[in-house]
Amino acid sequence: MPRLKVFDDCINELSRLPGVGRKTATRLAMHILRQDNTYATRLSSSIQALKERTRFCDLCGGLAESALCGVCSDPYRQKHTICIVADAQDILAIEQTARFRGVYHALGGALSPMDGIGPEELRMDELLDRIRGTLSSAESAESAEPAEDKVEVEIIIATNHDIEGDTTALYLQRILREFAHNEGATIHISRIASGLPAGSHIEYADELTIFKAMEGRRRV
Amino acid sequence: MPRLKVFDDCINELSRLPGVGRKTATRLAMHILRQDNTYATRLSSSIQALKERTRFCDLCGGLAESALCGVCSDPYRQKHTICIVADAQDILAIEQTARFRGVYHALGGALSPMDGIGPEELRMDELLDRIRGTLSSAESAESAEPAEDKVEVEIIIATNHDIEGDTTALYLQRILREFAHNEGATIHISRIASGLPAGSHIEYADELTIFKAMEGRRRV
Repeated sequence: MPRLKVFDDCINELSRLPGVGRKTATRLAMHILRQDNTYATRLSSSIQALKERTRFCDLCGGLAESALCGVCSDPYRQKHTICIVADAQDILAIEQTARFRGVYHALGGALSPMDGIGPEELRMDELLDRIRGTLSSAESAESAEPAEDKVEVEIIIATNHDIEGDTTALYLQRILREFAHNEGATIHISRIASGLPAGSHIEYADELTIFKAMEGRRRV
Repeated sequence: MPRLKVFDDCINELSRLPGVGRKTATRLAMHILRQDNTYATRLSSSIQALKERTRFCDLCGGLAESALCGVCSDPYRQKHTICIVADAQDILAIEQTARFRGVYHALGGALSPMDGIGPEELRMDELLDRIRGTLSSAESAESAEPAEDKVEVEIIIATNHDIEGDTTALYLQRILREFAHNEGATIHISRIASGLPAGSHIEYADELTIFKAMEGRRRV
Protein backbone atom coordinates (compact mmCIF):
# COMPACT_ATOMS: atom_id res chain seq x y z
CA MET A 1 0.00 0.00 0.00
CA PRO A 2 1.38 3.42 -0.85
CA ARG A 3 1.50 5.36 2.42
CA LEU A 4 -0.90 8.28 2.68
CA LYS A 5 0.99 11.50 1.99
CA VAL A 6 -1.29 13.56 4.22
CA PHE A 7 -0.58 11.15 7.09
CA ASP A 8 3.17 11.17 6.53
CA ASP A 9 3.19 14.98 6.31
CA CYS A 10 1.53 15.21 9.70
CA ILE A 11 3.96 12.64 11.18
CA ASN A 12 6.88 14.67 9.81
CA GLU A 13 5.67 17.89 11.39
CA LEU A 14 4.72 16.30 14.72
CA SER A 15 8.06 14.49 15.01
CA ARG A 16 9.86 17.83 14.91
CA LEU A 17 8.45 18.57 18.36
CA PRO A 18 10.91 17.96 21.23
CA GLY A 19 10.73 14.44 22.67
CA VAL A 20 8.47 13.25 19.87
CA GLY A 21 9.91 10.50 17.67
CA ARG A 22 8.20 8.92 14.67
CA LYS A 23 6.47 6.25 16.78
CA THR A 24 5.03 8.84 19.16
CA ALA A 25 4.08 11.09 16.25
CA THR A 26 2.16 8.18 14.71
CA ARG A 27 0.36 7.57 17.99
CA LEU A 28 -0.52 11.28 18.27
CA ALA A 29 -1.78 11.40 14.68
CA MET A 30 -3.95 8.30 15.20
CA HIS A 31 -5.33 9.87 18.37
CA ILE A 32 -6.20 13.07 16.50
CA LEU A 33 -7.96 10.99 13.83
CA ARG A 34 -10.04 9.16 16.41
CA GLN A 35 -11.35 12.33 18.03
CA ASP A 36 -14.44 14.12 16.78
CA ASN A 37 -13.96 16.57 13.91
CA THR A 38 -13.72 19.65 16.08
CA TYR A 39 -10.60 18.54 17.96
CA ALA A 40 -8.21 18.69 14.98
CA THR A 41 -9.61 22.13 14.13
CA ARG A 42 -9.29 23.40 17.69
CA LEU A 43 -5.76 22.02 18.06
CA SER A 44 -4.50 23.40 14.76
CA SER A 45 -6.11 26.81 15.20
CA SER A 46 -4.81 27.13 18.76
CA ILE A 47 -1.27 26.42 17.51
CA GLN A 48 -1.68 28.97 14.73
CA ALA A 49 -3.13 31.57 17.12
CA LEU A 50 -0.35 30.96 19.63
CA LYS A 51 2.32 31.72 17.07
CA GLU A 52 0.47 34.67 15.54
CA ARG A 53 -0.55 36.41 18.72
CA THR A 54 2.36 35.68 21.03
CA ARG A 55 5.88 37.03 21.05
CA PHE A 56 8.76 37.46 23.48
CA CYS A 57 8.89 40.58 25.66
CA ASP A 58 11.43 43.14 24.42
CA LEU A 59 12.61 43.77 27.96
CA CYS A 60 12.60 40.48 29.88
CA GLY A 61 12.30 37.88 27.12
CA GLY A 62 9.16 36.39 28.68
CA LEU A 63 5.96 35.49 26.89
CA ALA A 64 4.06 38.60 25.73
CA GLU A 65 1.15 39.69 23.57
CA SER A 66 2.75 43.04 22.74
CA ALA A 67 6.20 44.64 22.96
CA LEU A 68 6.17 44.41 26.76
CA CYS A 69 4.84 41.47 28.76
CA GLY A 70 2.24 41.69 31.52
CA VAL A 71 4.92 41.76 34.22
CA CYS A 72 7.15 44.43 32.68
CA SER A 73 4.17 46.69 31.87
CA ASP A 74 2.68 46.32 35.36
CA PRO A 75 3.42 49.54 37.33
CA TYR A 76 2.98 47.69 40.61
CA ARG A 77 5.80 45.21 40.03
CA GLN A 78 9.07 46.15 41.75
CA LYS A 79 11.49 46.98 38.94
CA HIS A 80 14.55 46.88 41.22
CA THR A 81 13.99 43.21 42.09
CA ILE A 82 15.00 41.11 39.10
CA CYS A 83 14.63 37.35 39.00
CA ILE A 84 16.98 35.83 36.41
CA VAL A 85 15.78 32.64 34.73
CA ALA A 86 17.15 30.58 31.85
CA ASP A 87 13.99 30.32 29.76
CA ALA A 88 10.64 32.03 29.31
CA GLN A 89 8.73 28.98 30.59
CA ASP A 90 10.51 29.31 33.94
CA ILE A 91 8.77 32.67 34.32
CA LEU A 92 5.39 30.95 33.88
CA ALA A 93 6.32 28.41 36.56
CA ILE A 94 7.35 31.10 39.06
CA GLU A 95 4.30 33.25 38.26
CA GLN A 96 2.11 30.23 39.11
CA THR A 97 3.17 30.68 42.76
CA ALA A 98 1.71 34.24 42.63
CA ARG A 99 4.18 35.34 45.34
CA PHE A 100 6.98 37.12 43.51
CA ARG A 101 6.38 40.87 43.09
CA GLY A 102 9.51 41.78 41.12
CA VAL A 103 10.30 41.47 37.44
CA TYR A 104 12.11 38.82 35.40
CA HIS A 105 14.97 38.48 33.00
CA ALA A 106 15.12 35.40 30.76
CA LEU A 107 18.63 34.69 29.52
CA GLY A 108 17.41 32.53 26.65
CA GLY A 109 19.21 29.43 27.93
CA ALA A 110 21.99 28.41 30.29
CA LEU A 111 25.76 28.29 29.84
CA SER A 112 26.82 25.01 28.29
CA PRO A 113 30.31 24.98 26.77
CA MET A 114 29.69 21.40 25.56
CA ASP A 115 26.82 22.66 23.39
CA GLY A 116 28.72 25.79 22.38
CA ILE A 117 26.55 28.10 24.48
CA GLY A 118 28.75 30.81 25.95
CA PRO A 119 27.81 34.17 27.54
CA GLU A 120 27.57 35.76 24.06
CA GLU A 121 24.70 33.43 23.18
CA LEU A 122 22.73 34.54 26.26
CA ARG A 123 21.09 37.88 27.07
CA MET A 124 23.82 38.93 29.51
CA ASP A 125 24.51 42.41 28.09
CA GLU A 126 20.78 43.14 28.06
CA LEU A 127 20.70 42.19 31.75
CA LEU A 128 23.49 44.63 32.65
CA ASP A 129 21.87 47.36 30.53
CA ARG A 130 18.62 46.77 32.39
CA ILE A 131 20.25 46.99 35.80
CA ARG A 132 22.05 50.16 34.67
CA GLY A 133 18.69 51.56 33.53
CA THR A 134 17.03 50.64 36.83
CA LEU A 135 19.82 52.32 38.79
CA SER A 136 19.72 55.55 36.76
CA SER A 137 15.92 55.84 36.64
CA ALA A 138 15.75 55.34 40.40
CA GLU A 139 18.53 57.93 40.85
CA SER A 140 16.79 60.53 38.72
CA ALA A 141 13.52 59.91 40.56
CA GLU A 142 15.33 60.48 43.82
CA SER A 143 17.42 63.38 42.55
CA ALA A 144 15.68 65.76 44.97
CA GLU A 145 16.94 63.69 47.87
CA PRO A 146 20.51 63.63 49.15
CA ALA A 147 22.86 61.51 47.02
CA GLU A 148 23.88 59.39 50.03
CA ASP A 149 20.57 57.49 49.75
CA LYS A 150 22.07 54.77 47.58
CA VAL A 151 19.98 52.85 45.05
CA GLU A 152 19.93 49.12 45.60
CA VAL A 153 19.05 46.34 43.20
CA GLU A 154 18.11 42.81 44.26
CA ILE A 155 18.97 39.97 41.94
CA ILE A 156 17.48 36.51 42.47
CA ILE A 157 19.20 33.85 40.38
CA ALA A 158 16.63 31.19 39.50
CA THR A 159 18.52 28.98 37.09
CA ASN A 160 18.03 25.21 37.24
CA HIS A 161 19.92 23.22 39.85
CA ASP A 162 21.88 21.20 37.34
CA ILE A 163 25.38 21.59 35.89
CA GLU A 164 24.41 24.22 33.30
CA GLY A 165 22.28 26.11 35.83
CA ASP A 166 25.06 26.02 38.45
CA THR A 167 27.63 27.24 35.92
CA THR A 168 25.32 30.05 34.81
CA ALA A 169 24.67 31.06 38.43
CA LEU A 170 28.41 31.22 39.18
CA TYR A 171 29.06 33.26 36.04
CA LEU A 172 26.22 35.66 36.89
CA GLN A 173 27.59 36.19 40.41
CA ARG A 174 30.98 37.06 38.99
CA ILE A 175 29.81 39.57 36.37
CA LEU A 176 27.24 41.12 38.71
CA ARG A 177 29.84 41.66 41.46
CA GLU A 178 32.22 43.18 38.89
CA PHE A 179 29.40 45.37 37.53
CA ALA A 180 28.42 46.56 41.02
CA HIS A 181 32.03 47.40 41.77
CA ASN A 182 32.51 49.36 38.51
CA GLU A 183 29.22 51.24 38.79
CA GLY A 184 29.53 51.82 42.51
CA ALA A 185 26.10 50.28 42.99
CA THR A 186 24.79 47.93 45.64
CA ILE A 187 23.47 44.69 44.20
CA HIS A 188 22.12 42.02 46.52
CA ILE A 189 22.49 38.63 44.89
CA SER A 190 20.82 35.42 45.98
CA ARG A 191 20.03 32.09 44.44
CA ILE A 192 16.84 30.09 44.97
CA ALA A 193 17.26 27.31 47.52
CA SER A 194 18.22 23.74 46.81
CA GLY A 195 16.76 21.09 49.12
CA LEU A 196 14.04 18.52 49.60
CA PRO A 197 11.00 19.10 47.39
CA ALA A 198 7.80 19.94 49.29
CA GLY A 199 6.02 16.79 50.47
CA SER A 200 9.04 14.55 49.89
CA HIS A 201 10.65 12.08 52.27
CA ILE A 202 14.30 12.14 53.33
CA GLU A 203 14.32 8.34 53.06
CA TYR A 204 13.70 8.45 49.32
CA ALA A 205 15.75 11.54 48.46
CA ASP A 206 19.04 11.15 46.61
CA GLU A 207 22.34 11.84 48.35
CA LEU A 208 23.10 15.09 46.57
CA THR A 209 19.67 16.53 47.42
CA ILE A 210 20.11 15.61 51.10
CA PHE A 211 23.62 17.08 51.09
CA LYS A 212 22.34 20.33 49.53
CA ALA A 213 19.42 20.46 51.97
CA MET A 214 21.81 20.04 54.92
CA GLU A 215 24.23 22.61 53.52
CA GLY A 216 21.42 25.10 52.91
CA ARG A 217 19.79 24.63 56.33
CA ARG A 218 18.08 27.65 57.84
CA ARG A 219 18.00 28.79 61.42
CA VAL A 220 14.49 28.35 62.86
CA MET B 1 0.63 38.63 35.55
CA PRO B 2 -2.61 37.45 33.97
CA ARG B 3 -1.74 34.36 31.96
CA LEU B 4 -2.05 34.72 28.19
CA LYS B 5 -5.32 33.16 27.06
CA VAL B 6 -3.93 32.23 23.66
CA PHE B 7 -1.10 30.35 25.38
CA ASP B 8 -3.40 28.56 27.82
CA ASP B 9 -5.75 27.59 24.99
CA CYS B 10 -2.90 25.95 23.14
CA ILE B 11 -1.71 24.17 26.32
CA ASN B 12 -5.25 22.88 26.88
CA GLU B 13 -5.52 21.45 23.39
CA LEU B 14 -2.00 19.98 23.37
CA SER B 15 -2.47 18.33 26.77
CA ARG B 16 -5.42 16.36 25.39
CA LEU B 17 -2.95 14.37 23.30
CA PRO B 18 -2.06 10.94 24.74
CA GLY B 19 0.99 11.00 27.00
CA VAL B 20 1.09 14.80 27.02
CA GLY B 21 0.58 16.42 30.42
CA ARG B 22 0.49 20.15 31.11
CA LYS B 23 4.26 20.37 31.64
CA THR B 24 4.99 18.65 28.33
CA ALA B 25 2.32 20.74 26.59
CA THR B 26 4.05 23.89 27.88
CA ARG B 27 7.38 22.64 26.58
CA LEU B 28 5.85 21.86 23.17
CA ALA B 29 4.16 25.27 22.98
CA MET B 30 7.41 27.07 23.85
CA HIS B 31 9.19 25.02 21.20
CA ILE B 32 6.59 26.00 18.59
CA LEU B 33 7.02 29.66 19.57
CA ARG B 34 10.78 29.46 19.15
CA GLN B 35 10.62 28.07 15.62
CA ASP B 36 10.35 30.29 12.56
CA ASN B 37 6.87 31.43 11.56
CA THR B 38 6.34 28.74 8.98
CA TYR B 39 6.55 25.83 11.42
CA ALA B 40 3.38 26.63 13.37
CA THR B 41 1.55 27.06 10.07
CA ARG B 42 2.87 23.81 8.65
CA LEU B 43 2.12 21.89 11.82
CA SER B 44 -1.41 23.23 12.21
CA SER B 45 -2.31 22.83 8.55
CA SER B 46 -0.92 19.28 8.45
CA ILE B 47 -3.11 18.36 11.44
CA GLN B 48 -6.13 19.94 9.80
CA ALA B 49 -5.41 18.21 6.47
CA LEU B 50 -4.90 14.87 8.21
CA LYS B 51 -8.31 15.03 9.81
CA GLU B 52 -10.07 16.39 6.72
CA ARG B 53 -8.57 14.07 4.15
CA THR B 54 -8.19 10.84 6.09
CA ARG B 55 -10.79 8.36 7.30
CA PHE B 56 -11.00 4.73 8.34
CA CYS B 57 -11.56 2.09 5.66
CA ASP B 58 -15.15 0.80 5.60
CA LEU B 59 -13.93 -2.76 5.18
CA CYS B 60 -10.79 -3.23 7.27
CA GLY B 61 -10.78 -0.20 9.57
CA GLY B 62 -7.34 0.87 8.37
CA LEU B 63 -6.28 4.35 7.37
CA ALA B 64 -7.86 5.42 4.07
CA GLU B 65 -8.36 8.43 1.85
CA SER B 66 -11.68 7.15 0.48
CA ALA B 67 -14.25 4.49 1.44
CA LEU B 68 -11.75 1.70 0.86
CA CYS B 69 -8.08 1.82 1.82
CA GLY B 70 -5.17 1.17 -0.52
CA VAL B 71 -4.90 -2.45 0.60
CA CYS B 72 -8.60 -3.36 0.32
CA SER B 73 -8.92 -1.69 -3.08
CA ASP B 74 -5.77 -3.36 -4.45
CA PRO B 75 -6.85 -6.22 -6.79
CA TYR B 76 -3.48 -7.95 -6.31
CA ARG B 77 -3.81 -8.40 -2.54
CA GLN B 78 -4.98 -11.87 -1.51
CA LYS B 79 -8.47 -11.40 -0.06
CA HIS B 80 -8.56 -14.86 1.52
CA THR B 81 -5.55 -14.10 3.74
CA ILE B 82 -6.68 -11.81 6.53
CA CYS B 83 -4.31 -10.42 9.14
CA ILE B 84 -6.21 -9.38 12.26
CA VAL B 85 -4.74 -6.47 14.22
CA ALA B 86 -5.98 -4.48 17.18
CA ASP B 87 -5.52 -0.97 15.78
CA ALA B 88 -5.09 0.81 12.46
CA GLN B 89 -1.52 1.85 13.31
CA ASP B 90 -0.55 -1.84 13.53
CA ILE B 91 -1.42 -2.10 9.82
CA LEU B 92 1.06 0.70 9.08
CA ALA B 93 3.76 -1.14 11.04
CA ILE B 94 3.18 -4.43 9.19
CA GLU B 95 2.97 -2.66 5.80
CA GLN B 96 6.41 -1.19 6.50
CA THR B 97 7.85 -4.70 6.14
CA ALA B 98 6.39 -4.80 2.56
CA ARG B 99 6.15 -8.60 2.76
CA PHE B 100 2.53 -9.35 3.56
CA ARG B 101 0.36 -9.79 0.47
CA GLY B 102 -3.00 -10.39 2.14
CA VAL B 103 -5.51 -7.94 3.62
CA TYR B 104 -6.11 -6.66 7.14
CA HIS B 105 -8.86 -6.38 9.67
CA ALA B 106 -8.49 -3.87 12.50
CA LEU B 107 -10.63 -4.76 15.52
CA GLY B 108 -10.50 -1.22 16.92
CA GLY B 109 -8.78 -2.35 20.11
CA ALA B 110 -8.13 -5.46 22.18
CA LEU B 111 -10.28 -7.27 24.75
CA SER B 112 -9.81 -5.74 28.17
CA PRO B 113 -12.53 -6.61 30.72
CA MET B 114 -10.82 -4.25 33.23
CA ASP B 115 -11.45 -1.31 30.88
CA GLY B 116 -14.90 -2.55 29.95
CA ILE B 117 -13.86 -3.58 26.44
CA GLY B 118 -15.68 -6.77 25.52
CA PRO B 119 -16.22 -8.41 22.11
CA GLU B 120 -19.20 -6.10 21.43
CA GLU B 121 -16.89 -3.08 21.55
CA LEU B 122 -14.66 -4.60 18.86
CA ARG B 123 -15.30 -5.24 15.16
CA MET B 124 -15.81 -8.99 15.62
CA ASP B 125 -19.12 -9.32 13.72
CA GLU B 126 -17.65 -7.35 10.83
CA LEU B 127 -14.78 -9.85 10.77
CA LEU B 128 -17.10 -12.86 10.53
CA ASP B 129 -19.21 -11.08 7.87
CA ARG B 130 -16.04 -10.46 5.90
CA ILE B 131 -14.91 -14.06 6.08
CA ARG B 132 -18.40 -15.15 5.05
CA GLY B 133 -18.22 -12.73 2.12
CA THR B 134 -14.77 -14.02 1.12
CA LEU B 135 -15.99 -17.61 1.22
CA SER B 136 -19.11 -16.95 -0.86
CA SER B 137 -17.40 -14.73 -3.45
CA ALA B 138 -14.67 -17.33 -3.91
CA GLU B 139 -17.32 -20.04 -4.22
CA SER B 140 -19.32 -18.17 -6.85
CA ALA B 141 -16.14 -17.45 -8.81
CA GLU B 142 -15.36 -21.15 -8.77
CA SER B 143 -18.93 -22.26 -9.43
CA ALA B 144 -17.88 -23.78 -12.77
CA GLU B 145 -15.49 -26.09 -10.97
CA PRO B 146 -16.52 -29.13 -8.91
CA ALA B 147 -17.83 -28.28 -5.45
CA GLU B 148 -15.24 -30.55 -3.78
CA ASP B 149 -12.60 -27.87 -4.36
CA LYS B 150 -13.11 -26.32 -0.93
CA VAL B 151 -12.50 -22.63 -0.29
CA GLU B 152 -9.93 -21.92 2.38
CA VAL B 153 -9.31 -18.80 4.38
CA GLU B 154 -6.09 -18.02 6.21
CA ILE B 155 -6.27 -15.92 9.33
CA ILE B 156 -3.12 -14.47 10.89
CA ILE B 157 -3.70 -13.10 14.37
CA ALA B 158 -1.36 -10.15 14.91
CA THR B 159 -2.49 -8.77 18.24
CA ASN B 160 0.10 -7.52 20.70
CA HIS B 161 1.93 -10.00 22.89
CA ASP B 162 0.58 -8.66 26.14
CA ILE B 163 -2.34 -9.69 28.34
CA GLU B 164 -5.01 -7.94 26.26
CA GLY B 165 -3.47 -9.17 23.01
CA ASP B 166 -3.23 -12.75 24.31
CA THR B 167 -6.84 -12.66 25.52
CA THR B 168 -8.01 -11.30 22.19
CA ALA B 169 -6.04 -13.96 20.31
CA LEU B 170 -7.59 -16.74 22.41
CA TYR B 171 -11.08 -15.33 21.91
CA LEU B 172 -10.53 -15.02 18.15
CA GLN B 173 -9.37 -18.65 17.93
CA ARG B 174 -12.52 -19.79 19.69
CA ILE B 175 -15.03 -17.83 17.60
CA LEU B 176 -13.19 -18.58 14.34
CA ARG B 177 -13.15 -22.34 15.04
CA GLU B 178 -16.86 -22.18 15.91
CA PHE B 179 -17.56 -20.17 12.76
CA ALA B 180 -15.60 -22.59 10.56
CA HIS B 181 -17.51 -25.51 12.07
CA ASN B 182 -20.93 -23.88 11.54
CA GLU B 183 -20.19 -22.74 8.00
CA GLY B 184 -18.39 -25.94 7.03
CA ALA B 185 -15.42 -23.86 5.92
CA THR B 186 -11.70 -24.42 6.34
CA ILE B 187 -9.99 -21.63 8.22
CA HIS B 188 -6.26 -21.84 8.91
CA ILE B 189 -5.46 -19.83 12.00
CA SER B 190 -2.01 -18.75 13.13
CA ARG B 191 -0.58 -16.15 15.41
CA ILE B 192 2.59 -14.11 14.79
CA ALA B 193 5.60 -15.52 16.62
CA SER B 194 6.82 -14.51 20.02
CA GLY B 195 10.56 -14.67 20.62
CA LEU B 196 13.79 -12.73 20.71
CA PRO B 197 13.64 -9.42 18.82
CA ALA B 198 15.94 -9.25 15.79
CA GLY B 199 19.46 -8.23 16.78
CA SER B 200 18.92 -8.92 20.48
CA HIS B 201 21.04 -11.00 22.83
CA ILE B 202 19.79 -13.95 24.87
CA GLU B 203 21.88 -12.70 27.78
CA TYR B 204 19.84 -9.52 28.09
CA ALA B 205 16.40 -10.90 27.25
CA ASP B 206 13.81 -11.30 30.01
CA GLU B 207 12.76 -14.76 31.19
CA LEU B 208 9.33 -14.73 29.60
CA THR B 209 10.76 -13.79 26.19
CA ILE B 210 13.34 -16.59 26.41
CA PHE B 211 10.65 -19.05 27.50
CA LYS B 212 8.40 -18.00 24.59
CA ALA B 213 11.33 -18.20 22.17
CA MET B 214 12.17 -21.73 23.36
CA GLU B 215 8.54 -22.79 23.24
CA GLY B 216 8.10 -21.38 19.74
CA ARG B 217 11.33 -22.90 18.36
CA ARG B 218 11.31 -23.91 14.70
CA ARG B 219 12.88 -26.93 13.08
CA VAL B 220 15.83 -25.86 10.92
